[in-house]
Order: sequence, then C-alpha cells, then structure tokens
Amino acid sequence: MRAVVYKGEYEVAVEEVEDARIEDPTDVVIRVTSTAICGSDLHMYEGRTEAEPGIVFGHENMGVIEEVGDGVASLQVGDRVVLPFNVACGFCRNCEANKTAFCLTVNEGFAGGAYGYVSMGPYQGGQAERLRVPFADFNCLRLPEGDEHEMDFILLADVFPTGYHATEMADVRPGESVAIYGGGPVGLMAAYSAHLRGAAQIFVVDKVDERLALAEEHAGAIPVNFSEVDPIEYIKEHSESGDGADKGIDAVGYQAEAGDGSGEVPALVLNNLVHSVRPTGRLGVVGLYLPADPGAPNEDAAEGRLLFDVGTYFEKGLSMGSGQADAKAYNRKLRDLIVAGRAKPSFVVSKRVPLDEAPDAYRRFDNREDGYSKVILDPAA
Amino acid sequence: MRAVVYKGEYEVAVEEVEDARIEDPTDVVIRVTSTAICGSDLHMYEGRTEAEPGIVFGHENMGVIEEVGDGVASLQVGDRVVLPFNVACGFCRNCEANKTAFCLTVNEGFAGGAYGYVSMGPYQGGQAERLRVPFADFNCLRLPEGDEHEMDFILLADVFPTGYHATEMADVRPGESVAIYGGGPVGLMAAYSAHLRGAAQIFVVDKVDERLALAEEHAGAIPVNFSEVDPIEYIKEHSESGDGADKGIDAVGYQAEAGDGSGEVPALVLNNLVHSVRPTGRLGVVGLYLPADPGAPNEDAAEGRLLFDVGTYFEKGLSMGSGQADAKAYNRKLRDLIVAGRAKPSFVVSKRVPLDEAPDAYRRFDNREDGYSKVILDPAA
Amino acid sequence: MRAVVYKGEYEVAVEEVEDARIEDPTDVVIRVTSTAICGSDLHMYEGRTEAEPGIVFGHENMGVIEEVGDGVASLQVGDRVVLPFNVACGFCRNCEANKTAFCLTVNEGFAGGAYGYVSMGPYQGGQAERLRVPFADFNCLRLPEGDEHEMDFILLADVFPTGYHATEMADVRPGESVAIYGGGPVGLMAAYSAHLRGAAQIFVVDKVDERLALAEEHAGAIPVNFSEVDPIEYIKEHSESGDGADKGIDAVGYQAEAGDGSGEVPALVLNNLVHSVRPTGRLGVVGLYLPADPGAPNEDAAEGRLLFDVGTYFEKGLSMGSGQADAKAYNRKLRDLIVAGRAKPSFVVSKRVPLDEAPDAYRRFDNREDGYSKVILDPAA
Amino acid sequence: MRAVVYKGEYEVAVEEVEDARIEDPTDVVIRVTSTAICGSDLHMYEGRTEAEPGIVFGHENMGVIEEVGDGVASLQVGDRVVLPFNVACGFCRNCEANKTAFCLTVNEGFAGGAYGYVSMGPYQGGQAERLRVPFADFNCLRLPEGDEHEMDFILLADVFPTGYHATEMADVRPGESVAIYGGGPVGLMAAYSAHLRGAAQIFVVDKVDERLALAEEHAGAIPVNFSEVDPIEYIKEHSESGDGADKGIDAVGYQAEAGDGSGEVPALVLNNLVHSVRPTGRLGVVGLYLPADPGAPNEDAAEGRLLFDVGTYFEKGLSMGSGQADAKAYNRKLRDLIVAGRAKPSFVVSKRVPLDEAPDAYRRFDNREDGYSKVILDPAA
Repeated sequence: MRAVVYKGEYEVAVEEVEDARIEDPTDVVIRVTSTAICGSDLHMYEGRTEAEPGIVFGHENMGVIEEVGDGVASLQVGDRVVLPFNVACGFCRNCEANKTAFCLTVNEGFAGGAYGYVSMGPYQGGQAERLRVPFADFNCLRLPEGDEHEMDFILLADVFPTGYHATEMADVRPGESVAIYGGGPVGLMAAYSAHLRGAAQIFVVDKVDERLALAEEHAGAIPVNFSEVDPIEYIKEHSESGDGADKGIDAVGYQAEAGDGSGEVPALVLNNLVHSVRPTGRLGVVGLYLPADPGAPNEDAAEGRLLFDVGTYFEKGLSMGSGQADAKAYNRKLRDLIVAGRAKPSFVVSKRVPLDEAPDAYRRFDNREDGYSKVILDPAA
Repeated sequence: MRAVVYKGEYEVAVEEVEDARIEDPTDVVIRVTSTAICGSDLHMYEGRTEAEPGIVFGHENMGVIEEVGDGVASLQVGDRVVLPFNVACGFCRNCEANKTAFCLTVNEGFAGGAYGYVSMGPYQGGQAERLRVPFADFNCLRLPEGDEHEMDFILLADVFPTGYHATEMADVRPGESVAIYGGGPVGLMAAYSAHLRGAAQIFVVDKVDERLALAEEHAGAIPVNFSEVDPIEYIKEHSESGDGADKGIDAVGYQAEAGDGSGEVPALVLNNLVHSVRPTGRLGVVGLYLPADPGAPNEDAAEGRLLFDVGTYFEKGLSMGSGQADAKAYNRKLRDLIVAGRAKPSFVVSKRVPLDEAPDAYRRFDNREDGYSKVILDPAA
Repeated sequence: MRAVVYKGEYEVAVEEVEDARIEDPTDVVIRVTSTAICGSDLHMYEGRTEAEPGIVFGHENMGVIEEVGDGVASLQVGDRVVLPFNVACGFCRNCEANKTAFCLTVNEGFAGGAYGYVSMGPYQGGQAERLRVPFADFNCLRLPEGDEHEMDFILLADVFPTGYHATEMADVRPGESVAIYGGGPVGLMAAYSAHLRGAAQIFVVDKVDERLALAEEHAGAIPVNFSEVDPIEYIKEHSESGDGADKGIDAVGYQAEAGDGSGEVPALVLNNLVHSVRPTGRLGVVGLYLPADPGAPNEDAAEGRLLFDVGTYFEKGLSMGSGQADAKAYNRKLRDLIVAGRAKPSFVVSKRVPLDEAPDAYRRFDNREDGYSKVILDPAA
Repeated sequence: MRAVVYKGEYEVAVEEVEDARIEDPTDVVIRVTSTAICGSDLHMYEGRTEAEPGIVFGHENMGVIEEVGDGVASLQVGDRVVLPFNVACGFCRNCEANKTAFCLTVNEGFAGGAYGYVSMGPYQGGQAERLRVPFADFNCLRLPEGDEHEMDFILLADVFPTGYHATEMADVRPGESVAIYGGGPVGLMAAYSAHLRGAAQIFVVDKVDERLALAEEHAGAIPVNFSEVDPIEYIKEHSESGDGADKGIDAVGYQAEAGDGSGEVPALVLNNLVHSVRPTGRLGVVGLYLPADPGAPNEDAAEGRLLFDVGTYFEKGLSMGSGQADAKAYNRKLRDLIVAGRAKPSFVVSKRVPLDEAPDAYRRFDNREDGYSKVILDPAA
C-alpha cells in the first residue's frame, strides 16, 4: 500500500510499504478515507525530534473497516469509523478514568500512545491507504454510513476534541468569559467549543487576521491581534469583570513568539494567561510543552524548565490543567453535535488533496503558506 | 403606593397600600420598573391555596433603588437591579451551599422564602410601585444603567433561572439529548438553556402549537405535540441513542393533563419522563408538586403521594433532582449572557401592560387567552 | 465440574455441569476460590422470579486464572482476580461513562448483564469450580498473589462497591450526616463507606440488634432500632442540623417491612427517607425495586408503581440516584484500601463453607438463621 | 484593651490600644478567648514584608460576642464563634462562588482580605482582648456553648481548613495515594484531612522527625525524611501504582530548603511534586508563593518567577490548584466533625500561653524552638 514516509529533515515521500494487517484478535484494519496533517507532525518533519527515517506519519484518521479480528465484538466490515489520535486499551487504570491519552498498556514504559508518532508506540500512521487499529472495539467510533460530514468527522480524531478538552480543563461554563491564546486549528476549535458551551465572551489572541476572522465568524469571538494591542490590557479592559477573563486557554505552547517579533519566548503564553484571567481563574493548556527540546533558547528550556509566574499564579488562586487531550472522552458527543447539525467544525479545514500530494502539502504547511493550515489527505483520490 | 392586592377567589384589585420602606439596616427599597405575573400566582388567584385576601402579589421584580439602609455596603440610590424570586439571607447553611431557595433565615419554620406568596414569609410582593428588599447586598443583582434589555432582565427573577436550573439538575451537557415536558414560559426557558449549553437534541412536548413553534424557532427544538403522537414512542424513535433521551425535564408539575383530554393525572409527566429517557438518565423537575393539594383527584394526591414508576426508575438507574430554583445561583451569568448579546430570552414575553391592567391580565391569563401567557406589569405606565 | 444448580422453588443442588471454557478470544477461565451467596439470589431461590431450573447461581466471584484467550492482553495464567457482579464490555456508551451496570453489549435488548442471574444474559454463575469471564481485560481486577485478604476481596464483587455506590449517589462528604435504612450486608457496607468518606454522623436503621451492633462497632454508626423508636423522629432529633440528615440511603428496597410487624409496605423506606433528610438532601437508592413483582401486595405494586411522597420530595428540593452499582467504577480503589490496611470489610462475612454445603446454606440463609447472613462458598474445600 | 503590636523587625510588644468597637451596623465585637500565632505572621515579624510598625497581629481568632450591630440578623451577645482568617463580604462574585479568600469587597483594589495582616485591608488583628468582626452574619461560625474543644475549634480559623483546602484542590478521594511535602501545622492538617477523606496512602515529606511522627500517629501517614532518602524515588517505589502518588500537596511554599542543606530553592517543592505524582496527577498548593519577595535568591524569584518543570508537567497531563484557603467553604463541616468526635486536630497545638507572653512566643517560634510550632494565645489568662 502507499503511505507517507518520513525520509529525514524536511522530507517525506509517498512510498509503497507493507500492507496493514490484523496482528491481534482485537484489531481491525480500515481503508483510510481521510487523514489529516497536524501541526505536531511538523515537529518531526523539521527534525526537532528523535524521529528516525521510515516512520509512516498520520494520527488523525478515519475510514471504513475492511478486516475484523476474531476477538472484536461490536464492529463489522463496512462500518465507517473515526479514531482518536491516542491509541488506548480501554481497561488500564487511566483508561478506566477516561484518561485515554495516558494509557498504560499500549506504549510500554510510557503513559500514552498514538499512531505514527515518535516515541508513542509501535503504531503505524494513517497517512496511508490502510491502517491497523488495535483494541478496535474501544478505539473505533462509529459514524453514519456514506460520506456525509467527512470533513467534520475527520476533525473528531484530534483538533475538535483537543479544543474541547481545553474548555473542559478550564471548566468554561455558560455566561463566562474566556481568553484563548492561539488561533490555529486547535485554538479555533477551543473557541468553537467555548461557544457551544455557552460562553458569553470569547477572546482569541493571534496575529494572523484570517484566523481572527474565522474565530469571529464561527465562534462569535472577540479578536485580539497581539501585534497591534497588548492582549493582557485589552482583555482586562473588555472583560465583563473588568479584571480579566474568567478562564484561559493556551493553544500555542512552547513555541510562542514575542509580539515584537524578537523570537521564541517559551513561557510567554502561560505567563500572559496568568495575567489575563481574574483571580480564581482556571487555565486549560493544550499547547505543547516538552521535557526535552533540543532547539530551545537556553539550557533550562532545553529540559522544559521555564520561568513561570508562580507568585502571581498563587496570589490569584489560579488553577491549571494540562496535557494531551483524551479524545475518546469527547468524540462521541461531539459526533452527535455534528450529526444533529449543531456543530460544523469543518470551517477550519483548508483543503483536501490526494495522498500523493502530501510532500507538497507538508512543505507549504511548514512554510505557513495561505490555504495550508489544515490539509486533509485523501488516499483514494 | 398602588399595588395588586388579592381580594379572594378569582379577584385581584389595584389599590393604595402602605408604602414600602426600610425596615432593617440591610434593606433597600426599589421603585419597581417591571414585575411579571407568574403561573404560580394563579394557584393563589384560583383559591387553591390558603392565601388570605390582602396579600400583595408579585415575586418576579426589578427596578431602581430609591432608598438604602445604613447596613448596606454595595448599593447606591439609582442602581438598577433585578431580584431573585426567592428571598434569601446569604449566610445560613443552605445559602452558603448556593441553595438560596431553601434559606433557613427568612421564613421561620420553613426552608425558603419569596415575595408576595402565601406561606413564603412576611415579604410583600412587587406588583406595586415600590418594593422592600431585605438582605439587599445579597439579593440585588446589579444591571447596566438605562432601560435596555428590560424585557430580558425581568426574566432573571424567575423563569430564566428556573428553566436553567432544570438543565442543571438534569446535568444537560454538550452533545446530549433532552426531553422537556411542558412548553410554557419555564419549559421554553429550559429548552433555551439546553440550547445555550450545547444540547444536540431538544424535544419539547406540549399540545399548543404556538409554544412548540417558539421552542423550535428559539431553541432549535424538535416539537412533540402529545395530542397527536405518543411522546414516549416519538422520543425513543427520534433520539440519537434509539432508546430515549439522555436527560429529561419536567416543566409541568402535578397539574399535568392526559393527552386524551380526560383531565388531570398528577404523576403523568414524571412517569412519562421515566419512560422517555434511556437507562442512566437524569431528570430535573421544576414543575410544581405539593405536599398538600385540596383540589387533588384523590386522597393520596391530596397529600402529594403519587403513583410513581419506582420499579422502572430503579431498573434504569435513573436519578432525579427537584425543587424551586435557586435563582441566585444562576442569575449573574445569565445576565452576562444577555449583556453580551448571547441570550435574548424575552421571546417568551407576551406583552407589557400598565399595573392598572393587572385585574384584566390575571383574568385572561387564567383563561389561557392567546397573548397572555407571560405578561409584564409596568407600574410607571 | 461441580456447580450450584437451581432446581426449582426452594431447591438448589450441587451437580456436575459442563466445564467452563474459553468461548471468545477475549475470555479467560478462572478456578473459583471464593463465591458468595447474595440476598438477591434468594429472589430466584424463592421462586419469585421467572428463573427456570438449570441456572447455575453465583454473581459474586473471585479466583485464579486457568486459561487465557488469544485476544486477552493484560492477564496471565495464575493471576488472582475478582470480578464485578455486572458483566460489561468496556466500550459501549454506558461503559465509557463508567455506568458498567448498564452495559449495552452483553445482554441483548437490556441495559446490564450479570453472572448466574435470570434475565441478565447468558453468563453462567460462579458458584462452581470454574467460571468463564467474558471481556476479561476489562472485567478482571487483579489482586495481590496468595490468599491474603480473601474474605475482604470477595466483597469487591458486589456488596462493598454496592454500599459505596449508595454513598456516591448520595454524595456523602466529610462532616455530613447520613441516614441509612437497612443493616444487612449492603447497608453495613454503605455505613462503612460513609465512615471511610468522613461522615460525621451515620444513622443505621434496622430492627436486628446484631446488625446495629456491627454498624456501631465498625462504622461508628448511631444505631436506630425501628421496632423501638420512630426512625424519622429519632434522626431529626439527633441530627446535627436538628432537621434531619444531610443525606439518605435506601439499602432495603421494595420488601420493606412495617415497624409494627404488619407486613410489606413497598415504598416505606423511600418515604421514610424523604422525611428523614433535611431540605436539599440527596438520596442514594441501592435497595431493589422492580418493574414487575408477582408477589406484590397490590396491582400497582405488581408493576412497580408505588405511592411516593412526591409533594414533600419536591417541596424539600430533594434529589435521588438509584440502581444497580457500577461495581467496576469503585472496585480498584476499594481494593487499594484493603491492601493498604485502611479497610477491612470482611466483618460482614458470616462464614465460609465448602461448595457442597450450598443447599444447606441457602436454606438457612432463607430462614434468616443466625450466622448465615453472608456465606462464602469455597469450591476447593 | 491589650494587643500584640508590631514594633519593627523581630519585635512585637503587648500594649494598650484603642478598644475594638462596632463601626458598621453589620459588625459584631467579640471578646477573644483564643488567638493563634501563624507561620505567616513570621514573614512580617522578620521584616520581609512592607508591614509598618503599629499593626496589631492575629488572623486566627475565636471568642464570645460582646456587642452586636443593628444590622446583624443571626447573632446574639454571648454566642461563641470562630472566624475564618479571611474577611469576606458574602455577596460579591467571588464570595458567591465560595471563593471567600478572594473577596472583592473588603480590601479595595485587591481580591481578598484578612485580619491583622499587611496589605490585607483595614482589619485589626485578634491577638488582643477584643476584635471587631465585619459582615458578622457571614463571617461568624457558631460553636457549642462553653469551652469544650477550644484547642480544636481555634484551628478552624486557618490551619485545619487550609490543610483541607489542599486535599480539595488535589481532589483526594477514598483509596488514593497522596504525597504531601511539608510536615508543619498545615502539612499535618493536610495529612489529617486526607486521612479523613479515606486516602489509602499518605506520604509526608519533611526532615523533622517529630513532625513525621505526628503524621504517622494521627493520620496513618508514611513518613519520608528527605534528609535521609530521595523523596521522589521513595514515593515512586512505595506507591501502590509503582509510578508515583495519585495526588500531591505543597505545604511548604517558596522558602523550600534543599535536602543537602545548601539553602532555599524556591521551586524545589513544586518540581519535586511534578516528579512525585504519576501521570494524570493533581496538585494542591497551599504553601505560599509571592509575586514580590525582597529576600529572594535572584531577580526572577524576587518577582515570583520560578523555574518550573512545565515540560514534564504537561507531558504527564498534570493539573494544579493554588492559593489561600477559602476557610469558610469548609469550616462548618470540619466543625461538625469535631463536635461529633470524628476529628481532633488539636494534636498540632504546641501550647497555650497568656497573651502577655506573645513576645517570647514569637521569638522562640521564629527560632524554631521545640514546643513552639503552634502557640495559642489566651487574652484572659
């Protein structure tokens, strides 16, 4: 089968690889119908991880079941399914607690597994014609037959639940205000989720006007362009409380850039959030932070130790949840919103292109070209 | 000052009564700008309670502060405020737990007080030119100056928080389905609240097409006319689960009427809900049930004992919250939704008329005349 | 293998039956080391259900794994495990929500399955030498090797989690008071759980002094003998609030007996609870109620419709959770309490006898003989 | 009246000051019966804050009401009461949310007020014969008459609720393990609270054997002397999960000392916690961190910016609550535990001495002399 294979820094190729197949009785194999390129794929693409050439990329996957293992109870050939990016077993201590992003079974020695990602276990990615899905009864979320909502459903694999997870950790409630840093696909999904949950004020902070316009149009957000205004001052002034937002979300992570263009400031967004929310605020952090970053600006940052405004955080009585989204904890109900016509997250999708165009799409996405912020690959095209 | 005074069965009059005044240092007196007639006022109006002639009606009130007691810390003459229908102290065991509908201070020997209602304590109603507000710092919710949103804000006194309370007790979450029995003002506010909270499917069950149309238009609800279809069958068939709604709400109470027109069946809605939700469902009951009902169809019902489907309730593992809404627990954030333009609940308001027209409005409301389902009285007109 | 087989009303026999074996790749087979007789087995034993002769009884089971299916990932031959009485798949909508007592997979057409119980699916009971365990990765809870705490661990199958579930539904918190009706094994486990959770006052209502003494000794409970005092009055008077307990638990169910010895009053305990808790109270109901009871005192009760004090329930703003316990939601942490020496629930165990003595044990238990309230069967003895 | 007055660095004196008196109708004045010296008083005592001479110290206070303002509804002369250290209004946005430590009314321009503390508002301390209590209905918690439990009840003002708050933020549940750094009065109360809540394993990390012995004796804790073992390794190895505690508590704050005696390392405890809990863990931070610390080891720390292991925190999906305890949110139920005989926190009290001995007690406490870790002052002695 054809698949997107990592060849080394800044290079992927579409190549023939061994077919995905049933390896355990609880597996299924799907024919991939849509698979998305994710911002986190760029970390490997840019050579900033320990990914070795040969990895098949792709952790945002959906398709139709082609083969079913003997130990699978609830799935049939022909079922249309979407998969959380996290591979999870369904029965370990963490899965039981719905913390499927920290499954203790699927990636020995580490809490959490994923498809097609360095250090996340032996699971090939789905940027390919076919994909093996382990613990299939648990990992497959069934979708209505046909091809309706394909561009919405594919987002159930990662960015929609990830944005939603941020609002869950921040406990965004009806009538509240929330400050969201980052207007990329995840930030937009966080804003969209906050809107669905009934937030009264949603501030989205970014410097790209197109993103801010999407947030305004689809989530009723108040755009805050941090290259034009001080976001902390702006949010405080415009928040209903007069003293900052009730809740805050980090959809940027350690690669935050200073507003003055002076480069990366790893803890910038975290600290801005501490000052953007009012006392008693809660933060949800889904932007990535790593315990090891070879490209970091200094030695502490290289080990994930950042200068964090702990004093102010404590004085204001803040709390902060963090980490990869437990996509499975949310994807069922988000699916139901799509089916019922209440949610249409596909506004963040830039385009859908044939799998063969993956090398070009990666290059353009990495260059931040317009129209490549969220590309879906179609292995059948 | 003028006020709406209860004269006896089916009779109210607008009469001069003694002026509202500061009685305790923690009181304020407001000039009432809007005051609503509530369905529960009809219980007294129809003589089905022990209300004695002389009571000034009105528990849904808002206005502008005219006088401020010496012990009031946060309010000024001129502040525009809305008051929860429940009078509450703010410091008893129940108020501390945000259960202000069950305040232990304001109505000796009973948990809970209200303005202008039989057995709910010594608090005159607000269907009058002026109103005394006890424990004013706690009970007054400040509103933006001016008269904007007047018809939305008045609903913060009761029906909007009461509808919201139902969704809170039923724990309606994004992506879920909910079955709401009753499309009167409270049922509509429950549907509207469910929509604000991100419900995927909202079934509203009523027999009045105008109500169902409002639910559909403003809350995206699926109308279920119980004079045309069996609501249990309809909801099961159309719910995403195929086995009933995730959650259920009773916005009808003990005066439920049989679909075949055969009269009141006090536990009808409760039992319909037990069968309309799927196993593990949760119910929120804001429709009124009373421990004493002189007009009940039988002796048990007269003492509030109803034949409830406990066996099925248990087998399905249901849970059920009940009771008057703790309006104060929700009114602040609902206000913020109105101010931010995210909520506009005034679609349930039928009309606003001068206080002097109260006798006519009561009569027509009691006759269920079109255009009188939610009337606001204006003492200044 | 030998097993306890239901032969008809008031008769069980230990007979040879076909060996338990792997039927699906996700099964394991255990050698049963301990299996308990449960009060709910008596419903079948007494012929008050539709159980047909031939059923192998036993839903409270533990043992050591003897065979492992090909699709099992986390278990080995020799592992010591205990099983929740509810059979559950781990991946359906309800299992995902930790509502494993309402699994939608294991018992077609019904929400919930169990071992060895009429209408609860095709799962043989564990009062036998061996037991097949479906969806084994999900259903097996691993225990420390050896035979330590055997009489504590066996209670993890049902009564300890069931008692705990009651406290969870009632949301018993540190410093609160709770009224528990029923001092049988489940009521005692509820009292014990309330104690573990830090309740300040635990009232246990029963008429058997031995049970009350156990509650007092092991859970610090305040005994209330309802054949001597009016439990409602007693609890109101002795509760810290002076107006009833904060929370209430029903560990009796529909076979409640009147205090004056006049026979069964199906809704007695529910209604007593409504009057035993203070306004805003929460109830947890684990005592059994059925939608069909052939032996009921009247036609409504035969269909599970009981006269419930809905009026008072609503006026007091009560809430009530109900249903079979999701044993799996609690058994891991309860196990950890046993392992750490913090919990020792085996004080409710009456005795352990060889499997062959099951017929005698059933008879004596059904006669309520002293020393037979909780009997554990040992297939190896 | 006599009071403990701050005179300057390392000096307090007992002097005559103006009598406490009713200033607002909602005030009461109490005769102080017990008032505790708190570790946080030492920050002022040592001259590490901007406290000016003249302040009357004391935020942990209880006593008997001597005078009652006209606007007080629920209190009488002679009532015995204990006061949360936080002064709060009861009606602002934060008090409504039970976040009384962040009251927006009592200390203009800041979220939160307290008695006798620099920058915490105009409220004299209670290390005096009398104390004015503002918003008395809200701030006074009534106690049983007499003098029973005096040494337990005084701890309701601060350390018992503060320790409990830590367990609440960390969401310590029955059967869980928790790592607590710090065995001073607050750490001990956290351990004691964790025990009351049913924790299975409680690790207490300190270097003082007397503290560890108290934790072991009264909270069943596992002592970890960090001058002898690496606490992270020890906790991982001994935790039931094998990978760290479920939850973690910081009861130390920014003045954490390195295990090797090399001095203060402000973020040491926070980072140790990140490594002591397992993935998905939750932290509760009640140890103090400040946005301004003149005595800090470096410039960043002087502004409360500390090197925090954000990378590992995120990778493990941790969450962290922080801040002063909302004592009022817990003191009622903790009181009920004391009254019921379920809790006896006075084991942390070192001694009770006459108010006149305050200068000596401060000096010895500041020197960490044995027997002076928690001193209660008695103004009547």
